[in-house]
Amino acid sequence: MSSNLINEIDIVKASTSKISSVDFENLTFGNIFTDHMLMCDFKDGAWQKPVIKPYEPFMIDPSAKVFHYGQAIFEGMKAYKDEKDDVWMFRPDENFKRFNHSAKRLAMPEVTEDIFIGGLKAILDLEREWVKKGKGNTLYIRPFMIAIGSGVIAQPSTQYRFMIILSPARSYYSGEVKVIIAEHYSRAANGGIGAAKAAGNYSAQFYPTKLANERGFQQIIWTDDATHTKLEEAGTMNVFFRINDTLYTAPTGERILDGVTRKSLIDIAKRDGINVEIRSVLVTELIEAAKDGSLKEIFGAGTAAVVNPIVGFSYQDNYYELPKLENSYASQLKEKLTNIQYKLADDTFGWTVKV
Amino acid sequence: MSSNLINEIDIVKASTSKISSVDFENLTFGNIFTDHMLMCDFKDGAWQKPVIKPYEPFMIDPSAKVFHYGQAIFEGMKAYKDEKDDVWMFRPDENFKRFNHSAKRLAMPEVTEDIFIGGLKAILDLEREWVKKGKGNTLYIRPFMIAIGSGVIAQPSTQYRFMIILSPARSYYSGEVKVIIAEHYSRAANGGIGAAKAAGNYSAQFYPTKLANERGFQQIIWTDDATHTKLEEAGTMNVFFRINDTLYTAPTGERILDGVTRKSLIDIAKRDGINVEIRSVLVTELIEAAKDGSLKEIFGAGTAAVVNPIVGFSYQDNYYELPKLENSYASQLKEKLTNIQYKLADDTFGWTVKV
Ligand SMILES: Cc1ncc(COP(=O)(O)O)c(C=O)c1O
Ligand SMILES: Cc1ncc(COP(=O)(O)O)c(C=O)c1O
Repeated sequence: MSSNLINEIDIVKASTSKISSVDFENLTFGNIFTDHMLMCDFKDGAWQKPVIKPYEPFMIDPSAKVFHYGQAIFEGMKAYKDEKDDVWMFRPDENFKRFNHSAKRLAMPEVTEDIFIGGLKAILDLEREWVKKGKGNTLYIRPFMIAIGSGVIAQPSTQYRFMIILSPARSYYSGEVKVIIAEHYSRAANGGIGAAKAAGNYSAQFYPTKLANERGFQQIIWTDDATHTKLEEAGTMNVFFRINDTLYTAPTGERILDGVTRKSLIDIAKRDGINVEIRSVLVTELIEAAKDGSLKEIFGAGTAAVVNPIVGFSYQDNYYELPKLENSYASQLKEKLTNIQYKLADDTFGWTVKV
Repeated sequence: MSSNLINEIDIVKASTSKISSVDFENLTFGNIFTDHMLMCDFKDGAWQKPVIKPYEPFMIDPSAKVFHYGQAIFEGMKAYKDEKDDVWMFRPDENFKRFNHSAKRLAMPEVTEDIFIGGLKAILDLEREWVKKGKGNTLYIRPFMIAIGSGVIAQPSTQYRFMIILSPARSYYSGEVKVIIAEHYSRAANGGIGAAKAAGNYSAQFYPTKLANERGFQQIIWTDDATHTKLEEAGTMNVFFRINDTLYTAPTGERILDGVTRKSLIDIAKRDGINVEIRSVLVTELIEAAKDGSLKEIFGAGTAAVVNPIVGFSYQDNYYELPKLENSYASQLKEKLTNIQYKLADDTFGWTVKV
């Protein structure tokens, strides 16, 4: 196989565009897709020629391994348009690395840089019109890979499909977010797949999250499954805690996803003189800090919502409210990060990549 | 919706049968499917009319939740033909219960008994020819459910597809099985989905199993993820340990699948005067018993292989060989269980159900 498959990409253009029928002011997250998708199959031990073609359903066998054994991984990233109408990606190399880390953990083939990064550039180039100008407007990017080989025996597939689909999105705002600290359920095991962006990790959280929703809480902050004493992360976000003027966040590792937003916020905070400590925060510490008033903020960090301030949390049926701060770390950091993403501030870190 | 949807089932027969092209003496497990499949969709909050139709691929959206968030569960069971050409299922009520337990844990809708049990009977009735007479011949049954609703937001789907597909199988024999005791990787978390037959649990095991394979071991015996000191189960089998003349097996619970074979073997063993203790066996106990010669047998128990004797195990790079026994518990119990399944022995437990 050529090492530059992306140069041979087949592009089949949609005969008409859906774009004029889309209300870009009123988008529900992840519901609408652009005109095209990228598809690249792996078989006979190699990646085949990628194709970009109209977004549409495809055929799959009922015995496909993805349905039975869950070989499915994904990434979540965004494209931004600057004032000069240029389209930018944010740290795509990080998503590429993480995708292949996930692939390895699920015994799936790694994707070449050529297909992943080259594929992103090719499809984003074609869908420029779908990336709208103005802060808050983004094109959400979903690369994913599924096992399409057939057979109901619990063994890795020999055939896979890598795809990129795109969905226009406004900055994800989920209203006031109250969270529950997990006391019984867990999202990841020691030696498990918590650090992979594996499809199976998400369905595992739906039922406990539903129980939380029924009690009036939007999300769960997961704790370590063995002792439920260490705060880890939320469903699709890493979590930061501000106690006095120090920002704490758990180290990533086997149970916690290595978030791109998390690591970018850490770098920005450090650059700007905020004290950041990367260590596990204990539930008992959090409760104490909430009681003595030193707990100033909790916020989630992830691609979809960027930064998501949390207004209060529940633990053992007690509810702890967080103070409303004027100039919170959450809002400062969000502003600084999105300014880099939209090319409104100098990208001194070299994070942005032009399409 | 009617509570007897199965009475309204649509049956679309295949115009020709593949059966004459199948070599029933040389079957690879899970590779070949019968002429028909059952399909039943859930939408608008209700199960729709089920249909049996020719086995074939179907269309699905690239953003289907099953691909991104892993809402996918399954069951594994078998049909047997007796000497009078009657077709039998084994404890289908247990698989039905477990299926709905899995559904609940993954925030998927529960299936009605009508659709699950009635559906099994309807499709097995149609595919009688595919169930071959003679011990060792079976028709493997794979009921499963996937989330087919579209949208890349991490929330439960509102649309699902329940299916039953069937694959002729010989008793699964995997040669001499040597296992590794897990020291680092794990299959399930406390408060996780280990007790559900969720697709995501299986892909999580592929990479560690590949590492074991590379070292010459076929399977892994999983230990508790927090301490790796307690023996739990294998990839698709519960595990029994015989120390002197007592049979030990771990209690099922949140991390261990409640296997139908396991519970049936326990009942048979108890009936026949074998001492059975249901408790966690520690790795240290196992090593000690291996060293002092009191460890007589280890075997896996699951629908695919029925009973799978293990010839040796590795722990911390030491290999422990098991004695070769004449009249092992494994072979006695397998014989007794399969005699019930094939109607060669009285079914005093009332486990078999005629199609
Ligand atoms: C479990 C989990 N944690 C954290 C994150 C945040 O990662 P990122 O900042 O790369 O989007 C995500 C993904 O969005 C996630 O799914
Ligand atoms: C993880 C796991 N454990 C145990 C078993 C055995 O269960 P059963 O005896 O119901 O087939 C299975 C399924 O076959 C399984 O997937």
